[in-house]
Order: sequence, then structure tokens, then C-alpha cells
Amino acid sequence: MNAPLPPTALPLVEPRPVPPAMLGALREHFGERCSTALAVREQHGRDESPFPVTPPEVVVFCESTDDVAAAVTLAAEHAVPVIAFGTGSSLEGHLMAVQGGVSVDVARMTQIVRLNAEDLTVTVQAGVTREQLNREIKDQGLFFPIDPGANASLGGMAATRASGTNAVRYGTMRENVLGLTVVTASGEVIRTGTRARKSSAGYDLTRLFVGSEGTLGVITEVTLKLYPLPEAVSAAICHFPSIDAAVQATMQTIQMGVPIARCELLDVNAVRAVNAQSKLGLRESPMLLMEFHGSAAGVKEQAETVQALASELGGEDFEWASTPEERTRLWTARHKAYFAGMQMSPGCRTVTTDTCVPISRLAEILNASVADADACGLPYYIVGHVGDGNFHLAYLVKEGDAAQRAVAEDLSAQMVQRAIALEGTCSGEHGIGLHKMGFLVDEAGAGAVAMMRSIKLALDPKNIMNPGKIFTL
Amino acid sequence: MNAPLPPTALPLVEPRPVPPAMLGALREHFGERCSTALAVREQHGRDESPFPVTPPEVVVFCESTDDVAAAVTLAAEHAVPVIAFGTGSSLEGHLMAVQGGVSVDVARMTQIVRLNAEDLTVTVQAGVTREQLNREIKDQGLFFPIDPGANASLGGMAATRASGTNAVRYGTMRENVLGLTVVTASGEVIRTGTRARKSSAGYDLTRLFVGSEGTLGVITEVTLKLYPLPEAVSAAICHFPSIDAAVQATMQTIQMGVPIARCELLDVNAVRAVNAQSKLGLRESPMLLMEFHGSAAGVKEQAETVQALASELGGEDFEWASTPEERTRLWTARHKAYFAGMQMSPGCRTVTTDTCVPISRLAEILNASVADADACGLPYYIVGHVGDGNFHLAYLVKEGDAAQRAVAEDLSAQMVQRAIALEGTCSGEHGIGLHKMGFLVDEAGAGAVAMMRSIKLALDPKNIMNPGKIFTL
Repeated sequence: MNAPLPPTALPLVEPRPVPPAMLGALREHFGERCSTALAVREQHGRDESPFPVTPPEVVVFCESTDDVAAAVTLAAEHAVPVIAFGTGSSLEGHLMAVQGGVSVDVARMTQIVRLNAEDLTVTVQAGVTREQLNREIKDQGLFFPIDPGANASLGGMAATRASGTNAVRYGTMRENVLGLTVVTASGEVIRTGTRARKSSAGYDLTRLFVGSEGTLGVITEVTLKLYPLPEAVSAAICHFPSIDAAVQATMQTIQMGVPIARCELLDVNAVRAVNAQSKLGLRESPMLLMEFHGSAAGVKEQAETVQALASELGGEDFEWASTPEERTRLWTARHKAYFAGMQMSPGCRTVTTDTCVPISRLAEILNASVADADACGLPYYIVGHVGDGNFHLAYLVKEGDAAQRAVAEDLSAQMVQRAIALEGTCSGEHGIGLHKMGFLVDEAGAGAVAMMRSIKLALDPKNIMNPGKIFTL
Repeated sequence: MNAPLPPTALPLVEPRPVPPAMLGALREHFGERCSTALAVREQHGRDESPFPVTPPEVVVFCESTDDVAAAVTLAAEHAVPVIAFGTGSSLEGHLMAVQGGVSVDVARMTQIVRLNAEDLTVTVQAGVTREQLNREIKDQGLFFPIDPGANASLGGMAATRASGTNAVRYGTMRENVLGLTVVTASGEVIRTGTRARKSSAGYDLTRLFVGSEGTLGVITEVTLKLYPLPEAVSAAICHFPSIDAAVQATMQTIQMGVPIARCELLDVNAVRAVNAQSKLGLRESPMLLMEFHGSAAGVKEQAETVQALASELGGEDFEWASTPEERTRLWTARHKAYFAGMQMSPGCRTVTTDTCVPISRLAEILNASVADADACGLPYYIVGHVGDGNFHLAYLVKEGDAAQRAVAEDLSAQMVQRAIALEGTCSGEHGIGLHKMGFLVDEAGAGAVAMMRSIKLALDPKNIMNPGKIFTL
């Protein structure tokens, strides 16, 4: 078993400094959009992970693919690391500048390049966030379903193969990216994919870049599938006597083929946290939040099927919501769970797991993980995209308390080994980053990781694209 | 524009002979399952494409991943080409042994390794065909939807990123392969993916191998998503006054978000051909074959929606089928179209196109292609997975008639350029093989193809895995 990387021990290799000639050239190209101010650099040397801030040497704010290509071309010439930065919401240390270098900020690349409502596709610049996209396409009766919680950039979501609450019905970024514009490690611009829904033309470069965490190139534009807004949407909360009962209801729903659009678990700790923060007055027991999309009749049918099987498993206190306002209230619980959970123990940081298993194994891993968590004495809460077999157990550890952190990391590692033994994955949706490099070897095997390394070296021979992430070279 | 490869001019590079030491070692390992008989070699040097038979030097019949690894290890040692062979139903010259070498036949690898009905997953050996799989899982109330027409092997379907009639609802092999066992170019065995429905753990090696046409390694086992057999299935034929009207109905169906499971076009020539062959007595006009999956009420609702919009476009003579027997009769037309079409002109070979465009562009490319085809004087027919924006126009050319073939290839090339201009692809589902190498450069650009080459060289430095396909090195 490979230990997770202790977040206080970053694998700092010898940093590769930005030479004055390169800095001068960046300043010439970017003018005021090039910054070496400490505050700016520090803001770009952190994400939502508990790793210590590890700033890049310089930050450039890009407004176009050409800007990114200019920065990467200079970096390639000087063999300096390049780290793409969207909204900074990644969770596994993806953005730490462990070898220094230049942060390529794409947050100002917010253009909807082209909306083709008649084809259910859109091309956006990498800095467009999912909320911006959904605001801008709503008038056309369309939506983009991938919802990782954070209002992440679509470039970042592609880079980490994000998913979230709707993946059980609509898939993840893996299924919903049709094509990309990428700046390669040499600064060249390539396009992958087309706007056709399918293709058998050559290697699937699109899906090679989706989930590559910035280690093969910088994604500057993303072409996405869109969906017609469903004719009817209905959401429900249902309370269960135990996590096991909630998970059994989920498993049966999936196994019956009900096309449920969202199926989220909150454990009693998460419910307590959102109650405390948002005064929702929810009954404090494990609960599922579900959503159904379709025609009015179809939604009714799905909802009745799930209600019947949930009731048999002790599910009760169904609360239904059909208007957007009622649904927003119900979903507040889920969307606020992350920050509400952290506020259970002020001054704490979270150690968050991300395992995903085949649906039939979900009860086994969740029950065992809950037993471990209850025994360890640390505060924790669970939220999960259980329809996918994916859940997050967040341990709350006191900032700077090495012993507590060690307990949490040890339990996290045990959970990963359990997930792998159950034919699942160490990361359902957050990626490998710095934190899970050891787990990747446990899961994929040394041969598969060696193959990933070969691809990396072939496409980025100077190892400048987000070096030190996913694996070490 | 890059011309398609004339099928009479195979790019034979200097063949790389199987040295006696390797042949001896293969015979020792495989015994009677190693053959150099001309008939066996010729059977392994052809596919459904019009390329001339180009046999490998030796054929080995594998029964396990270890058998494949043994053959590839020897081939790697002696730098001899390896071509994986399933059922021989590929269409673009994938199986031609243009550099000689060893054909690794996996057709005897027919084990269902593990069915996990409770997770809707199955792992099969590469030689299991889609029909065998569906027979073996039917009792469990499950099915695997990807249906490329031919009873292809699932290893081959993964290798060519196949799709077919159900892709509009269920996706292609891209979306339905969860993991693979692969013998790499050095003879090592790796696993990609897990049985979890999603993962963000490292590069997506699964999707790199799906569609790699045997050029990166040999797929020996495939883990697939399965689906519960729908509660209700309804199929319908609808006749239209023109191809344009049929395509408009398709476009509106997709744009409205109707979850249609199959939506196939037959032009009047295809209808005539199946009538002549199978005495179906169908009205000889362009027609759509549609299928709806869901609950009884859901299917009824979908069918009513589509019938209403088809009627507005002049669709008539709806013929519905709800029992399996009635459905089989309707689908006979589609499934027999390929061979029925060929029999329109005995002694002919077909030149088949495979473009796929964004759905809104489908009428434009189909109307232009029909005009070209009508003007050229060659017999032709059209069948299409039009719900995906994908169709096949098959020109019938006299065997050995170079002038006719040139006309057909020229029109095929024009259609590809049109598809690319409409942001589509030269290959929706058949792959690149030998035939479309030039088109791939037109579509993806030299930079993206160079990236594919880099990946190929990194994973197969001796260029032994199906060399000379997709691109030349």
C-alpha cells in the first residue's frame, strides 16, 4: 500500500526559476496582466485542499488562446513549469506550484464562443463557469447538467474530469465534452474532436485531456453537449432510519433502471450541520435528496416507483418540491453541506475522501467507513453522489494538529484500499493531484501508471505542464 | 485535401518477416493453434472493405490473455507486426497485414468472465460477440445495446469505437466500456479502469485504447455497462415524401429531447433492395425506423410526440410493432439492408461512406450527397443512424472497374470535405484503418495527428502493433 502524501510534506523538487529574459518577455506581452505581487502569487498557489500555500513565481492573466500560447511558448523555451488556474476550487493540491513557474490564469476567458442551440452544443472559453453558462443558455430552453458543487470553470472541470450531483443521469465531463482547444507543451494550438455527437476518427485525444489535470497541455476552449430543460422536474427529500436503508433504496433505484437525475445522501452529521447553519428544520436522520426529470407523466411515474421502494425500506417524511423556489430550498441543504460541515468545528480543515465503487458494494464500504469514523473520535460528516456509488467522508481536523491529521489520513487510506478491493476507484471526481499519487499506483498498477508516464513524456518532454501532479517522473 | 487511399494501391512497406526462431517458439506455445496455411492466412488478411487480401505470415488462435501476451512478447522480441483479429467484420482495411507479421486471433476467447447483474456490469473475453453476450444475459433481464449491425466481437467493437442503431440513446463503445485488459506492445498485461461508473484517477487509458484500432496494444478483456431490458419497447416504420422530410422529423425529435432509442433512415433504394430480397412489401419511399424504450406510459408518450411531428412533415403509413416478433420483422429491413443493397448489382463491391455531422447539418449534407449520387450514375443506397447525424451512402461499383471506383471514391472524398466543413467527422463509427488516413489529417489537423503519432511511438516504439493503420509513421 502506498501512503497518501502528508499535506505538510510537499515533494518540492528543485524549483525551476523564471529567468529574467522570460519575465521580461511575459511583461512585454501581458503588460499589467503579468504580476509577481506576493498576494497574487499566493492566491494562485492554493486550492481547496489542506496543502500549504505554494505560490508560483509569476501569474499571467490570459484573455485568449493566443495569450496562453504565448505564455506556454516562453515557458517551453525556458523549461519553466506552467500551471493553469481557473477558479481555484480543486481539492487535491492540483494548483500547488511545487516546482515554481508561471500560473496561467484563464478566469478572464469568459466568452461563450458559439452556442448552437439547434445541435445542443456550445463552445466556451475555459474560464466560463458552469453557473455563467447556465445563465446564458437558459433563455434557449437549455442547460448544462454537470454540477460539482463549486462554481468551477469549465476548463478546470474538464481538466479534473469533474462530475457531481447530476452525473447519475447525465454522465460526467468524460461523457459531455465533445471537443477541446488545447495549447500543447510546445505552445502549439490543436483542436480535438468535432461538433458531431460521435466519431471513430483516430485516438480519442479529447478524453486523454479530460482528466489530465493540466499535465499534458492547457485547455483553452471546451465544446460541450447541452440538454433541453426538462418539461417537468420534481425533487424530494426522504428520511431513513439508517445510512444502510438509504443506500439500499439507492441501489434498488439504480438496479431497476429508474432514470433518476440526482440521488444524494446526507448523513445525520451533515443534516445537523446544515440545520445549524441554515435553519432548515430538517429531521436529523440520514436522508436522500432526489430529483426526477422528464415529462410530467414520466416524472410522476419515476417518483412513485422510488417512493414505493423507499417506503418499504423505512423511508418516510417525504417532502416534495416541484416549483423552482421549493427545489432551491431543498437543494440548499446539499449545496451548503460542505461549508456548513466545516463550521461544525471552527478553525478546522477537512480531510475529504472521494472513493467510488460499483453500486452493489456501496452499502459495504459506507457501513465500514461509518464504523471506522465513529470509532476514531474525530468529527466527520458524509455527503455522497450515491447514485454513482460515490461519496465523500469529510474528517474535521484541527489546523496544525499532526496527530489528528494522521488519524484522518490513515482512515482515508484504509477506505481507499477497501474501495480498490471492491473494484472501485480512489477518486470518483476530485482527481489525483498531489494527494493521491500513491493511491493511483495501488489502483491502476505500476504498469498502467508507467504507461501514463510514457504518454506524459512523449507530449511534454521537458516536464513543464503542471509537473509533479498525478505521478512523479 | 488528402485523397483517400485507393484500395488497389496498398502502402506496402518492406514486410518484416517472422524469423524461424519466432515461428518455432509460436509453434511450441500454440501447437495446432498456430497456422501458416494459406487459406487460414488469407482468411485473416481481409475484412469487409474492398482492399485486396493481404495475408499475415502466421496466425495464432488465442484462448487467453496469457496466449496473447506470449505471442506479443515474441513479436516484440523479433520486431514483427501483430494484428488482432476478432470476427473480421471491420470496414476500412484494419486487418490487412500490410507489413506482414502475426495475426492474433481472439475469436476463441468467448468466456463471459464475470457477470455482475447487481451492478449492471459484465467482463467478457475479447472474442465474445454482441449476440452471444445478449443471449447470455437475457435471463437476468439485461441487455447490451451497442449494435453495429454485424455480429462483431466486443474486443473489435472496442478497438474501432463502434456504435450503431442504439447509439442515439445509449451512446457508443466510448460511453459503454468501463475497463479493459490490454496486452501492451512489450507483451505486458495491464488493466485500465475499474467497475465503478466513474473515476477521476489518472489518464483515461480506457478511452485511449477504445478506438485505437489495435495500434497501441491488444484488447483481451472488456468490462461493459449493461442496461435493464426496458419494461416496454415499441417500434415503428414511417414513410416520408422525401429524404429531407425524414431528416427534418429526425432533427426535431432530437432537438426536443425525446429519448428515442433508435432512429434509422432507409432511402428509397435501400427500401427497394430489401423488398426485392425479403419480400417485405414496404412502400417504396424514404422511411424511418424508430424504436422507443421505457415504461409503457413513457413509450406511448414518446411515440405520440414523434408521430405528431412526423405527420406534420408528411410522414404517413405508420406501422407499429410492440411484440418481439413484429419488431423483428420491421428490423429485418434495416439489418438486411447491407447485403440486400449489394445484391442490387451482383458482382459489385461497395464504397461506403461514414460521415457524421451535428444534427442541424444533416439535411444539408444528405441533400447534397443525394444530388451528387443521382448525378454520377452509379447505383447507390443510403442507410443511416440519423439520430446521431451519421449515415452511410454505399456506392456499388463493378469489381475491378477502376473508373467506377474512382468516381465513387471522389464523391466519398467530397462528402468528407463537406462533413468537415460542417464541423463533423469523416468517420462516425467505422474508424480510419487504411482507407481514411488522409481524411484524418484533413479533419484533426496535422498537429493533432502528430500528437497521436507521439503517443503511438511512446507506447509502441518498435511500431509492431497493427502498423500502417490510422497514420503512417
